[in-house]
Amino acid sequence: GHAKIDHHRTLRSGLPEVIYAAGKTPAQTAEIFSRMAATGVDVLATRADEATAEAVLTAIPAAIHHPSARAITLRQSHAAPRGHVAVLCAGTSDLPIAEEAAITAELFGTHVTRHYDVGVAGLHRILAQRETINQANVVIVCAGMEGALPSVVGGLVGVPVIAVPTSVGYGASFNGAAALLGMLNSCSPNVTVVNIDNGFGAAYTATLIARMAHHP
Amino acid sequence: GHAKIDHHRTLRSGLPEVIYAAGKTPAQTAEIFSRMAATGVDVLATRADEATAEAVLTAIPAAIHHPSARAITLRQSHAAPRGHVAVLCAGTSDLPIAEEAAITAELFGTHVTRHYDVGVAGLHRILAQRETINQANVVIVCAGMEGALPSVVGGLVGVPVIAVPTSVGYGASFNGAAALLGMLNSCSPNVTVVNIDNGFGAAYTATLIARMAHHP
Amino acid sequence: GHAKIDHHRTLRSGLPEVIYAAGKTPAQTAEIFSRMAATGVDVLATRADEATAEAVLTAIPAAIHHPSARAITLRQSHAAPRGHVAVLCAGTSDLPIAEEAAITAELFGTHVTRHYDVGVAGLHRILAQRETINQANVVIVCAGMEGALPSVVGGLVGVPVIAVPTSVGYGASFNGAAALLGMLNSCSPNVTVVNIDNGFGAAYTATLIARMAHHP
Amino acid sequence: GHAKIDHHRTLRSGLPEVIYAAGKTPAQTAEIFSRMAATGVDVLATRADEATAEAVLTAIPAAIHHPSARAITLRQSHAAPRGHVAVLCAGTSDLPIAEEAAITAELFGTHVTRHYDVGVAGLHRILAQRETINQANVVIVCAGMEGALPSVVGGLVGVPVIAVPTSVGYGASFNGAAALLGMLNSCSPNVTVVNIDNGFGAAYTATLIARMAHHP
Amino acid sequence: GHAKIDHHRTLRSGLPEVIYAAGKTPAQTAEIFSRMAATGVDVLATRADEATAEAVLTAIPAAIHHPSARAITLRQSHAAPRGHVAVLCAGTSDLPIAEEAAITAELFGTHVTRHYDVGVAGLHRILAQRETINQANVVIVCAGMEGALPSVVGGLVGVPVIAVPTSVGYGASFNGAAALLGMLNSCSPNVTVVNIDNGFGAAYTATLIARMAHHP
Amino acid sequence: GHAKIDHHRTLRSGLPEVIYAAGKTPAQTAEIFSRMAATGVDVLATRADEATAEAVLTAIPAAIHHPSARAITLRQSHAAPRGHVAVLCAGTSDLPIAEEAAITAELFGTHVTRHYDVGVAGLHRILAQRETINQANVVIVCAGMEGALPSVVGGLVGVPVIAVPTSVGYGASFNGAAALLGMLNSCSPNVTVVNIDNGFGAAYTATLIARMAHHP
Amino acid sequence: GHAKIDHHRTLRSGLPEVIYAAGKTPAQTAEIFSRMAATGVDVLATRADEATAEAVLTAIPAAIHHPSARAITLRQSHAAPRGHVAVLCAGTSDLPIAEEAAITAELFGTHVTRHYDVGVAGLHRILAQRETINQANVVIVCAGMEGALPSVVGGLVGVPVIAVPTSVGYGASFNGAAALLGMLNSCSPNVTVVNIDNGFGAAYTATLIARMAHHP
Amino acid sequence: GHAKIDHHRTLRSGLPEVIYAAGKTPAQTAEIFSRMAATGVDVLATRADEATAEAVLTAIPAAIHHPSARAITLRQSHAAPRGHVAVLCAGTSDLPIAEEAAITAELFGTHVTRHYDVGVAGLHRILAQRETINQANVVIVCAGMEGALPSVVGGLVGVPVIAVPTSVGYGASFNGAAALLGMLNSCSPNVTVVNIDNGFGAAYTATLIARMAHHP
Ligand SMILES: Nc1ncnc2c1ncn2[C@@H]1O[C@H](COP(=O)(O)O)[C@@H](O)[C@H]1O
Ligand SMILES: Nc1ncnc2c1ncn2[C@@H]1O[C@H](COP(=O)(O)O)[C@@H](O)[C@H]1O
Ligand SMILES: Nc1ncnc2c1ncn2[C@@H]1O[C@H](COP(=O)(O)O)[C@@H](O)[C@H]1O
Ligand SMILES: Nc1ncnc2c1ncn2[C@@H]1O[C@H](COP(=O)(O)O)[C@@H](O)[C@H]1O
Ligand SMILES: [Mg+2]
Ligand SMILES: [Mg+2]
Ligand SMILES: [Mg+2]
Ligand SMILES: [Mg+2]
Ligand SMILES: [Mg+2]
Ligand SMILES: [Mg+2]
Ligand SMILES: [Mg+2]
Ligand SMILES: [Mg+2]
Repeated sequence: GHAKIDHHRTLRSGLPEVIYAAGKTPAQTAEIFSRMAATGVDVLATRADEATAEAVLTAIPAAIHHPSARAITLRQSHAAPRGHVAVLCAGTSDLPIAEEAAITAELFGTHVTRHYDVGVAGLHRILAQRETINQANVVIVCAGMEGALPSVVGGLVGVPVIAVPTSVGYGASFNGAAALLGMLNSCSPNVTVVNIDNGFGAAYTATLIARMAHHP
Repeated sequence: GHAKIDHHRTLRSGLPEVIYAAGKTPAQTAEIFSRMAATGVDVLATRADEATAEAVLTAIPAAIHHPSARAITLRQSHAAPRGHVAVLCAGTSDLPIAEEAAITAELFGTHVTRHYDVGVAGLHRILAQRETINQANVVIVCAGMEGALPSVVGGLVGVPVIAVPTSVGYGASFNGAAALLGMLNSCSPNVTVVNIDNGFGAAYTATLIARMAHHP
Repeated sequence: GHAKIDHHRTLRSGLPEVIYAAGKTPAQTAEIFSRMAATGVDVLATRADEATAEAVLTAIPAAIHHPSARAITLRQSHAAPRGHVAVLCAGTSDLPIAEEAAITAELFGTHVTRHYDVGVAGLHRILAQRETINQANVVIVCAGMEGALPSVVGGLVGVPVIAVPTSVGYGASFNGAAALLGMLNSCSPNVTVVNIDNGFGAAYTATLIARMAHHP
Repeated sequence: GHAKIDHHRTLRSGLPEVIYAAGKTPAQTAEIFSRMAATGVDVLATRADEATAEAVLTAIPAAIHHPSARAITLRQSHAAPRGHVAVLCAGTSDLPIAEEAAITAELFGTHVTRHYDVGVAGLHRILAQRETINQANVVIVCAGMEGALPSVVGGLVGVPVIAVPTSVGYGASFNGAAALLGMLNSCSPNVTVVNIDNGFGAAYTATLIARMAHHP
Repeated sequence: GHAKIDHHRTLRSGLPEVIYAAGKTPAQTAEIFSRMAATGVDVLATRADEATAEAVLTAIPAAIHHPSARAITLRQSHAAPRGHVAVLCAGTSDLPIAEEAAITAELFGTHVTRHYDVGVAGLHRILAQRETINQANVVIVCAGMEGALPSVVGGLVGVPVIAVPTSVGYGASFNGAAALLGMLNSCSPNVTVVNIDNGFGAAYTATLIARMAHHP
Repeated sequence: GHAKIDHHRTLRSGLPEVIYAAGKTPAQTAEIFSRMAATGVDVLATRADEATAEAVLTAIPAAIHHPSARAITLRQSHAAPRGHVAVLCAGTSDLPIAEEAAITAELFGTHVTRHYDVGVAGLHRILAQRETINQANVVIVCAGMEGALPSVVGGLVGVPVIAVPTSVGYGASFNGAAALLGMLNSCSPNVTVVNIDNGFGAAYTATLIARMAHHP
Repeated sequence: GHAKIDHHRTLRSGLPEVIYAAGKTPAQTAEIFSRMAATGVDVLATRADEATAEAVLTAIPAAIHHPSARAITLRQSHAAPRGHVAVLCAGTSDLPIAEEAAITAELFGTHVTRHYDVGVAGLHRILAQRETINQANVVIVCAGMEGALPSVVGGLVGVPVIAVPTSVGYGASFNGAAALLGMLNSCSPNVTVVNIDNGFGAAYTATLIARMAHHP
Repeated sequence: GHAKIDHHRTLRSGLPEVIYAAGKTPAQTAEIFSRMAATGVDVLATRADEATAEAVLTAIPAAIHHPSARAITLRQSHAAPRGHVAVLCAGTSDLPIAEEAAITAELFGTHVTRHYDVGVAGLHRILAQRETINQANVVIVCAGMEGALPSVVGGLVGVPVIAVPTSVGYGASFNGAAALLGMLNSCSPNVTVVNIDNGFGAAYTATLIARMAHHP
């Protein structure tokens, strides 16, 4: 239990610290999770496998496991949601990353709408959901393979788009590098990019933005 | 003038040999062009700079210089066009490559329609031209930067799409490599890809396809 | 069962949607397969492992498992084949990809001829089969390692060649990247390229082309 | 003068279209600039060299040339600034990109503070300016070489940080790729990234964010 | 037992040869370890897994296993420590590499201080330990992801900094390549770099330097 | 004139030292050339531009300039040729590298036959020259773009093939890297490879081999 | 058993076809091995694991398994060795590749001397064996990590050096790519290179060379 | 003249700030140089072209221009040299980088010995100078192409070796990347590495080390 919890960041941003469970044993994650929970704040663990979820929920039965997002959350605050984050993904295989983003943004206190399997090879799918997406304060777009969706979305909305390349694909997708490069070269100027599969980071920044739009 | 003209390929495909003028002196290109012209066939020189154009047109005044395509053509055959090739490009900077493709396909005897500056960040532009594009037998799509246009087009049409990544862009476009990777990972299964900036090759294959659809 | 079947593409191209079984559980694939089968259309699942095949065939006993292609097909239509697709591969290790292409093109309604283990280091092998290959409307060439076969084939035939780099090889083959680069730089202008190991995509476009040559 | 001005984006985002002067002749840029100016809106041209500046200022004497930013601006609107964007850069060589960002954000109507030459190898420099930076609604950080500054800044502030890798450096900086990779892997979760040298894009998104914080 | 022990290097540098246990069987490592131990010198095995540790400790009960460093040591010399090496790491995941460096430098006869989890996204952590770090003769800095810590440390101290990129991270960290590039491009001129995860090499050179500062 | 001539290598291999003129001033190359010439041996300068050739020929009028090979030679020995080296190239753009190889092998005392413009997209060209090529003791094959020729040649002959990737090509040829990778992955086991554009090195090894076949 | 044995190559080079067992089942390899053995020629299988060895030796008890080389050989010819091939490797981890080369060259009928663990960081090791190495007609040098050994050897001998990069190393060795690049850039002009870990290919060409030096 | 001189680093390390002249105008460099000179300290400008040298020497006639090092120095201190730095380079083309290192280390107050053109392809050259090199407290080794020299030197000496990859080479040297990778993978554990062509950085760290060995 020698890991230090960084209270500085929490103070600066108003967002809770988060446990990155990859590379930690279930016991380690459960121990840190419990320690954080005891302080009364909201708690999030990302990249948690089944064994980790079991260990955490045994320790903190009130925690919730989101298997498709590989995340565990504990909601202890009671504030109403502030701001609207739309989360999109291109294909069903991008779902784990999209859900990591959605669950994170929700725990961080925003209203989230999900728009999944709306890849560019069938434009009618995204055009059909255009109206709701346009009401969001910020849009997160997850896509693997050619990573084209953020450019299309960037052209449809007037708010910041955070692009998340996913490692979905094979061959020349090079584990997400093709999607990453595509997004960095987006011709839509409202697109910024995070690391491959980093749904958490996208949601973190999206929350900061969405809150600005809705200060109490 | 020791370069051998490959009559084999012409016989096989019914398409004329083409002079790749890059790396040849104006005099060399003019000499080969003249020799081909003398046989009565159609002649094409690609990647021809101003000096080369001057040398060729001095030798063969009937030849036509297409500066934006960096191409020189000589039409000597009289067949009616066979098949319809639509040539699209995402931005105005992709125009030289798109024109190389268009001029080549025209000289090779197809009907060409041009649809330029229809990048995915402003979908209304491509949707507006959808009807004409849908009448083509094959579509050539040139795009640099994130190279997303072929995926969108692939989803709109029911014919083969030949994607041409262009070296347009900067930074992480890596001279067209980002666009190339995007196109290779297209989620539209009717997309095949040629080398960066290879408008000629795209038009060559497109012509072979378009002819099949319209055999006399 | 929340995956949406895209009927738009089917309408556009006349080709059935296909299930990409990689990353899906056997149950998920079987469920989608059954749903599609119930509509009376032809059905194809690619990248299907043994467990998936078992699940699908239990649900749909009329389906056929092609282990070397890692594919499952269900033929429900009765149209005669249209067009001729020749499928070549360089070495015996490229066979799974070549078979993915061949099985796909057959289910999509073309006549397929197979020409396997005809790599360029023993030219007599390809030259011996030249005559049949020359009768095809389009040629699919699968090769790993140096990926040289499409260039040689491109020079022998007068029709489009679709090159499929395979991940066969070791060391500096970089899982198919060497073959991919070789094919993109082919000096035969009738060669276009798809993603590494994408036999399915090659067959999809090949079918569109072969059909043009043989419209009823 | 056949380039179409995209009024859609302007409507969506409230931000003017911008001319990317690289790859355009001075005359082309001047012509487009004039056409836009005539509509009464604010106009910006980026990546403008000396000759382009001369052509534009001859046509539109009220325009201002910012040589260090390689930008030309024309301010015709009269709104008070909304929101605060802090622009930082690591070294003096990053200045052109930082200025491109600063000039853009200013023309787009935000209050900009500049914090230059505050690289991480001399921490006292950034710590000295910490207070002002902390008042910004969003921070743009430009850095080449190892690109470490955004992570440090991300830890100091509680708002979104937009990282701009620059092509400053030599050898293993690979023209900005090292900085880009560093920023994408930032351990500060409030960092998102744009393309190498893309000061404009960073300012575009920063403006959208800063406006949210200060809606009238 | 045909591996030759290189006594030349030992003579030149005064430091013992070391067994790289990766790719050796437990029995092979135990055999070499025993042979070296029999000569009365200090012995070190790196990259030793559990099975190897068991085999070595069975043969040489006086040896010590350091699981977090994946190292096994046998101290047989009695010299007092010479010189001070500070070992830092950015995150807790970098700990195995930092410990490999620390254990190696200790066995090689230096005084080691550890400063872990002091990444740049929370500057207060490193600033808090600044005084001790400043007393070291040489500093080893291990960091994955963006690898920014060596630049910051390089600016804080007046002694050589040896940077060890670690393979910690995901996506665009490319198994440590991003951190490696960052460190090579450090704007602090007192930073030199070793291979990804090479804690041993860093400690080897650090020991040579620390000894110079404290010759008896 | 402080450059030291390495007489050791000459003694070992029986081949003269060679001047790599790239990066040397014409005067420097002329001075070294003269010094070597004075010792009575054969002399070769590679990568020599026009100005260098002029400087050398002014100093040593008996030297010969080979512009297409960018080489300067001085023959002073009188031995009869030993061994047969066949030099092939795929396209006319590979000629400078092929000539560098041919001129080098000739000066080094072998019989050289040239077989140029025999790329794999027109197999009849190489098959037509098969008989002469089969008489060589070793074959040098220069090719850019996809670099497929060495594999085909390797399958046709029973002697070592030395493959020279050339930087000919554009886009995804990445300045010869595609050809290099293709050659390294050749499925013909008698192919070894040298650096991109290294005609000299290929000829050096080819000479060593050819001599073995014909010892006096 | 549908794999065709290529008798053409055997006729051309006088060397037997070889079975590449990777990716084949034990049964497949045993079947091909038996078929070849029945023709009375020498037979070699490379990349054979334990199970494959068992299957082959059950079928052909006279075959010999070389576990460190991962090879299986059957000697049926009785010719005396022709030519001398020296096989070197830098470290003990390179041994499997060096042994693949040595076993291959021996079966192919050359005299092989082994010089292992002679890496450049302890020059006395290679200098001690210099005399024997100098008697070889061709030298194969296997090395991973920095791949420096071929350059040193190339400077010591007057015969061709065939460099085999191995995948030995970690981190920035990129599975042999670093060694490969080093060897391609060797400043010794008598060095040619084969694919990473391709001991077989090196031995194949080495045999062709060694035979030339010792024709009966 | 708004560039701030960083007095912090000078205080920490005892070494003067240095002007990186690349990307600065001659006037800018001359102005900064003069300002520093006026404070009485030693001054160094690196990467200075002819025009910069002229501007600086006009302003400060006592400064010395070292053209082969592209450096300008002004010595104003009078301390005796402390410590011995040996500077080696593999070929004559590496000389500019080696001289940058040597001139820097000399100005920083160490005794420097130069050992140039001692590449590994002719071992006698380095072995001949072994004795002097062995007396140094630290060795800087500059090499391009395969970058093998540091490993050899690392094995010959018992002190730290700082490896400087140079951009010397062509083709697969990839502007120094091959040398860089080689050095990072050195099997000599006393080798650390700096950026490509970074002679200055190597000398900076070497000076820190050499001083430790010789404290007054
Ligand atoms: N899925 C994720 N991807 C990237 N960073 C994460 C993720 N989850 C948590 N983090 C970051 O990791 C930090 C916690 O790391 P640790 O102290 O190792 O648990 C948090 O402060 C987050 O900034
Ligand atoms: N082997 C394959 N390689 C690439 N794409 C495929 C493959 N098999 C199917 N697809 C595509 O994947 C889509 C189905 O994806 P999904 O909805 O995830 O099952 C189909 O429409 C095809 O376009
Ligand atoms: N963790 C390590 N990383 C890199 N090199 C190491 C490591 N551990 C030991 N070595 C080196 O490997 C050599 C021993 O290799 P070996 O003879 O294969 O056991 C030692 O002399 C060290 O120089
Ligand atoms: N270890 C190896 N590395 C590369 N090529 C090999 C190797 N072993 C055999 N080969 C080649 O593979 C061919 C046989 O391949 P296959 O027909 O798939 O068994 C032989 O003719 C050899 O040229
Ligand atoms: Mg789908
Ligand atoms: Mg536009
Ligand atoms: Mg075979
Ligand atoms: Mg500064
Ligand atoms: Mg932490
Ligand atoms: Mg030709
Ligand atoms: Mg050893
Ligand atoms: Mg020399």
